[in-house]
Amino acid sequence: MRPDVSEFDLIRRCLTGVGAARDDVRVDVGDDCALLRVPPGRELAVGIDTLVAGVHFLPDCDPAALGWKALAVNLSDLAAVGAEPAWATLALTLPAADEDWLAAFARGFGELAAAEDVRLVGGDLTRGPLTVTVQAHGFVPMDHALRRDGARPGDLVCVSGALGDAGLALRHLLAGEPVDDYLRRRLERPTPRVALGEVLRGLATAAIDLSDGLLSDLGHVLAASGCAARVELDRLPLTDQVAAAVAAADDWTLPLAAGDDYELCFTLPRAAAGQLPVLAAAAGCPLTTIGEIESGSGLRCVHADGTPWQPRGRGYDHFATA
Amino acid sequence: MRPDVSEFDLIRRCLTGVGAARDDVRVDVGDDCALLRVPPGRELAVGIDTLVAGVHFLPDCDPAALGWKALAVNLSDLAAVGAEPAWATLALTLPAADEDWLAAFARGFGELAAAEDVRLVGGDLTRGPLTVTVQAHGFVPMDHALRRDGARPGDLVCVSGALGDAGLALRHLLAGEPVDDYLRRRLERPTPRVALGEVLRGLATAAIDLSDGLLSDLGHVLAASGCAARVELDRLPLTDQVAAAVAAADDWTLPLAAGDDYELCFTLPRAAAGQLPVLAAAAGCPLTTIGEIESGSGLRCVHADGTPWQPRGRGYDHFATA
Repeated sequence: MRPDVSEFDLIRRCLTGVGAARDDVRVDVGDDCALLRVPPGRELAVGIDTLVAGVHFLPDCDPAALGWKALAVNLSDLAAVGAEPAWATLALTLPAADEDWLAAFARGFGELAAAEDVRLVGGDLTRGPLTVTVQAHGFVPMDHALRRDGARPGDLVCVSGALGDAGLALRHLLAGEPVDDYLRRRLERPTPRVALGEVLRGLATAAIDLSDGLLSDLGHVLAASGCAARVELDRLPLTDQVAAAVAAADDWTLPLAAGDDYELCFTLPRAAAGQLPVLAAAAGCPLTTIGEIESGSGLRCVHADGTPWQPRGRGYDHFATA
Repeated sequence: MRPDVSEFDLIRRCLTGVGAARDDVRVDVGDDCALLRVPPGRELAVGIDTLVAGVHFLPDCDPAALGWKALAVNLSDLAAVGAEPAWATLALTLPAADEDWLAAFARGFGELAAAEDVRLVGGDLTRGPLTVTVQAHGFVPMDHALRRDGARPGDLVCVSGALGDAGLALRHLLAGEPVDDYLRRRLERPTPRVALGEVLRGLATAAIDLSDGLLSDLGHVLAASGCAARVELDRLPLTDQVAAAVAAADDWTLPLAAGDDYELCFTLPRAAAGQLPVLAAAAGCPLTTIGEIESGSGLRCVHADGTPWQPRGRGYDHFATA
C-alpha cells in the first residue's frame, strides 16, 4: 500500500480502459455518470449481484479469479434472459488501497469482459470489508427476453454443461485437499452461457441460471410458471468426479443444491426436442434433457427405477436458517 | 429476526413495488434481470455508489434515513450530468435478515424514489457487513449531458443551496451534542438537485455534485477542463450555524472540505449571469456565484480583502492517508 494512493488515482489507474472498446459508450469511468446508448428496438436488461468475502468466496482467493467471477455471475444473469452483454459497472469495497490486488482484480475482470465484448463503464471504490458488487447491462430485442414464467406441462427440462463441479471444488478446498485444474476453473472462472441464452430466445418457454442450485433455481421457474416438474437423477449431466462423489456418499447435494454452477436450466416444448443438438452446437456447450414439466406444483426427483428421492439439501439462501 | 425468513421472501416482501410505477419497466425485482426501455433520442446515464457502515454512515443510524440517503447520493450524480431519473437498483449486504430494518430502509428509499419518479427495478440481498450499493439510471437528450470538462476562463463558478451543513451535523453527532432538525435533515436526507441539473443543460459549461467537498469536487472540474479557479470565501453560501462554526474556529473546512453537501457546483458563461434568478426559481433552490474560472491550473481561495487562504483540509478520499 502506497501512502499517496488516493481513490481517484486508483480508479483512474486500475479501472479505466477495462474490457472491450465500444462505440455505444459516450463517457465511462471517471465522470459522475457513464453515458450510454441502447440500440433502437432493444430493451435494456440489467442485473446486479454482490459477492462478500467469507460468504461467497474465500478471503484469500486469487484477486484475478475474483474479478473474473464477479463479472461472470452477472453475465450469467444476462444469459438467463437471452441478453447480449454490453456494459458493466463495479462497486468495490476494499479494506486497504492495495494497488497490486486491484490491478490483478481488474485483469481478471477485463479478461472475461474483453472475451464477451463488455466494457467497464463505471466504478466506485470505497474502504471497508471486502465486497464486490457488479451490475451487468445487455440488450434483448423488444419483448423477446427469456422469462421464468412460460414453462408448460409437457415441456422438457434441460440444462447446459455439468452440475456440481464448483461445489466439489469448494468442498475439496475447504477440506484442504488438492483440487484439479478443471474443477478449480469451474469454481473460480465459470463460463457464463451467453451464447446459449441468445439462441434460446423464441424457442425456450422459460429459463434461469443455476447460481443457487438446481432445486432452488428450477423451483423459481416452477413457482413463476405455476407448474410442477419431474427430474430424473440418472439423467443429470455429471463429470466423473462429481458422479464418484455422489455415489460414494449416496448424496445428491452437489449437483442439486451446492450452487455456483452458472449453467442455464431451461424448458423447451417437446416438439423442439430435435433442435437440442443444433442449439448445443451453436452455444458451444453440451445440453441435456433431465426431466419434464408436469401440471401441479413442486419439484420431484426420481431415481432410475422411478422411486422418489427426498431432498436433504436445498439451494443456497443467504438468510435461510432452517 | 424470524427463523423462516429467506432472501427470496425478504426481497419479495420488502423490495418489490418500491418507488413510482413506470411504463418503461417491463420486468422488475424478482427475475434474473430487470427489462427496461430507454426512450428514443435519449442517452442512458448511470452512476453507482456504495455506502459502508462506519465509513459513510454511523452503524446505528435510522434505516429509513439510510434508505433515503443511499438513493439521494446516486440521484445527485444523475443531477450532475443533467439527467432525468428513472430507475434504481440496490445491492444490500446485511449482517442478519432483519425484516423490520429492511422494511424501514425500503420505506425511506421509496419516499425519495416516489418523489423523483424513480422505480426500484432490481435488488440483491446478501449476508455480510452492512453495505449499501445503489445504481441510479436516468435519461439525457443525446449529446446534451452536462460534463466536467467544459469550464473556460471567465466563466462564473456557482453553487446551489448552502455548504457545510451536513459536515456540521456530523460533527455535532460525533461529539454527542444535540443537532437541530434542519442540520440533521441535511445530513441524513439530502435533496438531490435533480431539477437544477435539468435546467442547466445547454447553459452550464461544466457541472459536478458536491459529495467530497468543494475543494475536491471543483478540483475535478478544473483538472478535466484544464483551467484554474478563484473562489471568494466571503461569497460562500452558509447557514448561520455554519458561518458561526467557521468564525469560531477560523477554519473553513466545513464548507470547503467536509463533504456530503450534495449540492451542484457549475460553471456558467459570464453572459448568462442574468439567468441565475430564473434558474434558481425553476430549480427551487438558491444559486450563488462564488468565484470565477481563470487560466492556468489549481484552485485558490481568497478572503474578502484579497489575501489568499491556505487549505488545511481536503475532500474526503477513502484511501488518502496524507
